[in-house]
Amino acid sequence: MRHISLNRPFVVRSYASSWPASQLWSASYLSSALGTQPVNVALTPHGNADSVIDVGGKGEGKLFVQPYERSEPFTSAMQYIQAQELGGPAQHKNRPTRYLQTQNDNLRSEYTALFSSVPPSIPFAHIALQKQPDAINFWLGNSHSVTALHKDNYENIYVQVRGKKHFVLLPPVESVCVDERGVLAATYKPRQREGSAESEEKEEDLNNLIPHVTEPHTYTPFALWDPDTPPSDDRGTRFSHLSQPMRVTLDEGDMLYLPALWYHKVSQSCNEEGICCAVNYWYDLEFGGSFWSMANFIRGVGLLSPAKSGG
Amino acid sequence: MRHISLNRPFVVRSYASSWPASQLWSASYLSSALGTQPVNVALTPHGNADSVIDVGGKGEGKLFVQPYERSEPFTSAMQYIQAQELGGPAQHKNRPTRYLQTQNDNLRSEYTALFSSVPPSIPFAHIALQKQPDAINFWLGNSHSVTALHKDNYENIYVQVRGKKHFVLLPPVESVCVDERGVLAATYKPRQREGSAESEEKEEDLNNLIPHVTEPHTYTPFALWDPDTPPSDDRGTRFSHLSQPMRVTLDEGDMLYLPALWYHKVSQSCNEEGICCAVNYWYDLEFGGSFWSMANFIRGVGLLSPAKSGG
Ligand SMILES: O=C(O)CCC(=O)C(=O)O
Ligand SMILES: O=C(O)CCC(=O)C(=O)O
Repeated sequence: MRHISLNRPFVVRSYASSWPASQLWSASYLSSALGTQPVNVALTPHGNADSVIDVGGKGEGKLFVQPYERSEPFTSAMQYIQAQELGGPAQHKNRPTRYLQTQNDNLRSEYTALFSSVPPSIPFAHIALQKQPDAINFWLGNSHSVTALHKDNYENIYVQVRGKKHFVLLPPVESVCVDERGVLAATYKPRQREGSAESEEKEEDLNNLIPHVTEPHTYTPFALWDPDTPPSDDRGTRFSHLSQPMRVTLDEGDMLYLPALWYHKVSQSCNEEGICCAVNYWYDLEFGGSFWSMANFIRGVGLLSPAKSGG
Repeated sequence: MRHISLNRPFVVRSYASSWPASQLWSASYLSSALGTQPVNVALTPHGNADSVIDVGGKGEGKLFVQPYERSEPFTSAMQYIQAQELGGPAQHKNRPTRYLQTQNDNLRSEYTALFSSVPPSIPFAHIALQKQPDAINFWLGNSHSVTALHKDNYENIYVQVRGKKHFVLLPPVESVCVDERGVLAATYKPRQREGSAESEEKEEDLNNLIPHVTEPHTYTPFALWDPDTPPSDDRGTRFSHLSQPMRVTLDEGDMLYLPALWYHKVSQSCNEEGICCAVNYWYDLEFGGSFWSMANFIRGVGLLSPAKSGG
């Protein structure tokens, strides 16, 4: 509780080493537990779920593009993820990247067969926050997926089970650095072949994922700056170079307390089976004190902060 | 600790009713405990210690003026405070206001004879903050003194012993409302009669306290807006009218947790003996988490916020 009340991240190495998940979750275990059960799969051309892409020429336009979501049998989705990771370039040239990342409490809904491998709540978080988790999420992907810089209105307990996750973390006060702007929302969709219906969708169709602008037009506020690239004319504010990101890698069994409203960018490395797998717990943040109002004030100032090239 | 981590004020009524101070501290007890021991007394012409005054015509200039400090025997200072409160207008016409308010851990230095009447630390604050108090302060004054709106870099546990204190409280996020500006610092001093030395100072000299500008010139950042008067051309920003001050009165025995960096204005009412007396505990605030950096960012934005009339 002393740590959480500071809104400051910390890692406990090997926190989850004795969880059944840490012992059991090999690819073959997951496959036998879930089999051909249909799961929601996020597909993107470049592993970029929920990210901002440039369209047309540089500076011509940007889209905030969400993945193409599609139901697939668990085992074939996982095998695809493994093959893309472990196979040669032929395995992923022009092919989409798959990521199981529903973030809607999927471990208690889609992946119920796995839920008994993890605790139903995290004792220290439970005591500090006096709440049950709002969502418990299962993540399975490979090194092709990167989660772009964003923040969540949640206290996050993130536990790595297989492979590694690499976090870049920025505190809420650096909101003026992240260049958050309203970006036109879109969703990837497979290019429709002449005369084919959605139900007849073929694997080849997925090699051509095209962003479709959401109708009616919606602008989603999203961080444009990537803390791994220097601020450019196009992305970043005149304060971005002052940012001091924290970087931490979670290994199998490690736990990260990722405080509410911290910006995070997440990339991943697989284990020898070609999977990267994690579980996280979202607890509602505390809206009652100074924190929420101060953080929103600061975010409001950040939204006023002009882009690098006076945009 | 759950309360303190929210940076949100709260009052516990009658928290200190069983403290020896609450039982013992009558005027005659204080007088017999401290007698003629010299104490530091703050003198001001209008009860305005540490406040901003207009000099010359309206809008011509402002001074942040500190009280004239002078050593006096405790009992005579207290009797003066009582007489000013209880006597007719003749008792205070043209006379200065006295306030015992040294704020330098005076209960453990100047007023040691009273220290055993209060606990050496506040148990719940001690547990939540894991610190000993930095300062324990004794306050004795009358209804002529008002402490102008300001904030402190401390967690404050404020306990009313005699009379009442009336607090106006603004959270740190309202920094943009308080119109904090660098104001030329000064100190009240008695008008020097021709050829008289400071050591010969007479009571009449104190009826003429004049602000002397501090040399070399120093600008002290201070809140110009008074939350009890509507923002004017001269004081307040274009956001002041949006402020939502909280108001609370402490009665004898009541305790206020006044969170770090909250702006507060304090006025007072006396008991039937003509005194208002309190004790407060300052604990260092926590600099290690998001709170300190966020609050300072917000204060920085407040300092940029132009005054009402574009000043
Ligand atoms: O694991 C990831 O790819 C992203 C995790 C994340 O953004 C979260 O837990 O909020
Ligand atoms: O009691 C007063 O007059 C002022 C109290 C105050 O400002 C404080 O305790 O910080």
